[in-house]
Amino acid sequence: GCSRPLPSGAFVYRGTFVHSTQQTALQILKDALLGVDAQGKVLISFICHKAVFFGLLHSSEFFMPGLVDTHIHASQYSYAGTALDMPLLQWLNAYTFPVESCFKDLEFARKVYTQIVRRTLRNGTTTACYFATIHTEASLLLGQIANDFGQRALVGKVCMDRNDCVKHYKETLQDSQDETCRFIKELLEKKYPLVKPVVTPRFAPSCTGALLEQLGEIAKNNNLHIQSHISETHEEVKLVKELFPESESYTDVYRKHNLLTDKTVMAHGCHLSDEELALFRETGASLSHCPNSNFSLCSGVLNVRNVLKHKVKLGLGTDVAGGYSASMLDAVRRALDASKVLTIQDPKYKTLSFEEVFRIATLGGSQALSLDDQTGNFEVGKDFDALRINVAAEGGPIDLIQDEEPKVGLNCRCACEVSQQAIKYGAFLGF
Amino acid sequence: GCSRPLPSGAFVYRGTFVHSTQQTALQILKDALLGVDAQGKVLISFICHKAVFFGLLHSSEFFMPGLVDTHIHASQYSYAGTALDMPLLQWLNAYTFPVESCFKDLEFARKVYTQIVRRTLRNGTTTACYFATIHTEASLLLGQIANDFGQRALVGKVCMDRNDCVKHYKETLQDSQDETCRFIKELLEKKYPLVKPVVTPRFAPSCTGALLEQLGEIAKNNNLHIQSHISETHEEVKLVKELFPESESYTDVYRKHNLLTDKTVMAHGCHLSDEELALFRETGASLSHCPNSNFSLCSGVLNVRNVLKHKVKLGLGTDVAGGYSASMLDAVRRALDASKVLTIQDPKYKTLSFEEVFRIATLGGSQALSLDDQTGNFEVGKDFDALRINVAAEGGPIDLIQDEEPKVGLNCRCACEVSQQAIKYGAFLGF
Ligand SMILES: [Zn+2]
Ligand SMILES: [Zn+2]
Repeated sequence: GCSRPLPSGAFVYRGTFVHSTQQTALQILKDALLGVDAQGKVLISFICHKAVFFGLLHSSEFFMPGLVDTHIHASQYSYAGTALDMPLLQWLNAYTFPVESCFKDLEFARKVYTQIVRRTLRNGTTTACYFATIHTEASLLLGQIANDFGQRALVGKVCMDRNDCVKHYKETLQDSQDETCRFIKELLEKKYPLVKPVVTPRFAPSCTGALLEQLGEIAKNNNLHIQSHISETHEEVKLVKELFPESESYTDVYRKHNLLTDKTVMAHGCHLSDEELALFRETGASLSHCPNSNFSLCSGVLNVRNVLKHKVKLGLGTDVAGGYSASMLDAVRRALDASKVLTIQDPKYKTLSFEEVFRIATLGGSQALSLDDQTGNFEVGKDFDALRINVAAEGGPIDLIQDEEPKVGLNCRCACEVSQQAIKYGAFLGF
Repeated sequence: GCSRPLPSGAFVYRGTFVHSTQQTALQILKDALLGVDAQGKVLISFICHKAVFFGLLHSSEFFMPGLVDTHIHASQYSYAGTALDMPLLQWLNAYTFPVESCFKDLEFARKVYTQIVRRTLRNGTTTACYFATIHTEASLLLGQIANDFGQRALVGKVCMDRNDCVKHYKETLQDSQDETCRFIKELLEKKYPLVKPVVTPRFAPSCTGALLEQLGEIAKNNNLHIQSHISETHEEVKLVKELFPESESYTDVYRKHNLLTDKTVMAHGCHLSDEELALFRETGASLSHCPNSNFSLCSGVLNVRNVLKHKVKLGLGTDVAGGYSASMLDAVRRALDASKVLTIQDPKYKTLSFEEVFRIATLGGSQALSLDDQTGNFEVGKDFDALRINVAAEGGPIDLIQDEEPKVGLNCRCACEVSQQAIKYGAFLGF
């Protein structure tokens, strides 16, 4: 591959690259070359090549793919780190709905949405799949802010026409449909290169069958992404059974209403049956594993090994503010903890490796959001969507023994150079 | 209390103070006054008082007690964040013993010990109970470094005369006894104000009964602290039963050799019976709960509620490098996770509150180390051993909504002003 000429405007980086492929959970390429064209697409990767421009990495640095947060409530960031003292359904009524209803105030929305987009970028999240609130204007604003900061984002105006407890925080069926269509139309008209709308029924208990039906239609007619929640807690599963007695399972509720497609991502899935996982596989729908939230709200522990066995696409999510951390590196650590809890309960359970979780947080996330044609690893043709990591960063969280090559963990300094974060974990022993 | 005159050299701080007492898990005192005498002792606390000098806190700031790490292996910091892919006994042989044997090299020891003392202080740990290695000189060096940085520390030269696997990393019975006596004598002769020796049998499986016997004697004759490990994994409990068939339980092994006293702290205790907990209560020995380590090595989940019910003194520990984080704020978060895992397994299990874990990490730790006459909270007569927290610190991990009083969590900036850390959790809703 040493003879192909580079187009003008191309840039070549030389150094260590770490990413995942379908075959290798963690591929570490030392002293490799990666070319990026003027449009930011990966042009060549890891091929010996003569090139004019070199971006040369220091030996303590490497590139990894941007992290993909497949499930995060931008609006809930305002109370992240508090209010985790009750289970899901009570928590929604006591904390979440009252706070989300404040987002009709656009200035409040601007403040919180600016903070969460800036914070997640600082934490290395270059792609996020956001829940906003039921408010169209504020949801459009979230899309604008993500675009302004250069974050790849799916943005969902939340749809819910059922709320027995906080009665002022819901829409009529007609409003939900109309505003969803307006949200989609207006967001698409902006032609933001990295920001797209996602059809967002909150979850089955917040929606009538009629609303689910219409949202399935809207998604289908516009070939849109879909996101929602599924099977997070036992109590919720029981409630769905009561509300939708004609459905065979929670998964069947969504499937019946055409909400399970290969552009669907469902958060949690802690208590899905094997039959339901098979439905995910069949339809191409994916799961977002949110372990911090599952611990924090005492919801359950997802058996990731079983999800992978069923070949269901899987990403990681922070689920702010059910999860108290807006960092995907926290999600990586919590996913390992969740897996270790299953091993503690049954020593025969094969714990996930650090490498496997790294893949789920990057390539897996991009697949779960059907964005793996654009991001997730450094394959030719994808966007060069990367974090430049310096494990020896001044003031960083990692102490390296002198003369030692970096191996302790990852000290992420994200592409936008705003801040850093650490995977104080597992990591690159051979590196 | 407004009329008592302050001695010269006293200093009065005014602002918000947060600490724990025996009666109140988390006491929040707003606009309070705390006087500190020239020796650094708390002179008055939270009393209205006329005073000459005021250290006035900003509204985004507060003081909390320094964090107490009741169990940390200073020597293992060199591989923290890696090598967590096997259970305890194999992990010791594969990673720990080979690394610890390197500490005969004093320059290596100086590098790692400087890093860990500096790092834990940056993380807000003002008191640490350290395991070093079997090497007397390096262990003395750890004491010197803690003293130089001003950290309160118990430092243990590790004792072990049994090691079937890594045969070069052990001592003879005679050497272990002699070197322990030399270590204690030389460390005490330094007269470091905050650093004391602690008698440290590694754990029963690494020691012959004869060594345990002699270490119990040494501790008794010199009225010293004692630390070790107990009942971390099922495999280890089984091994101890085989090695000490004459003992009724793991706890009984230590008790028989006079190693359970009111100055003893034992790490883990995940699998202790109620009878063993009663022995702890009787002798005044304490437990160090190390949840990160227990997750990371798949060791088990300590039932903290049951420990508290048995009125056994309890602190938190990072257990670096079985635990991958050298931050006590991580230990706080993991202790909450561990408790939530127990609630997930049994919804009737009463999850620990954030406030309870805060107390365990501060006052509880000081009690577990029998240092609660000096530190743990802001009672009159104790050292003013405090962290000055600024939740609005520039570049910090917490985003506050404008006009909102701090409530999201703690952004610890420790007394030595080196760095910051976050409890991105629970926290001060009424604050
Ligand atoms: Zn969610
Ligand atoms: Zn230990």
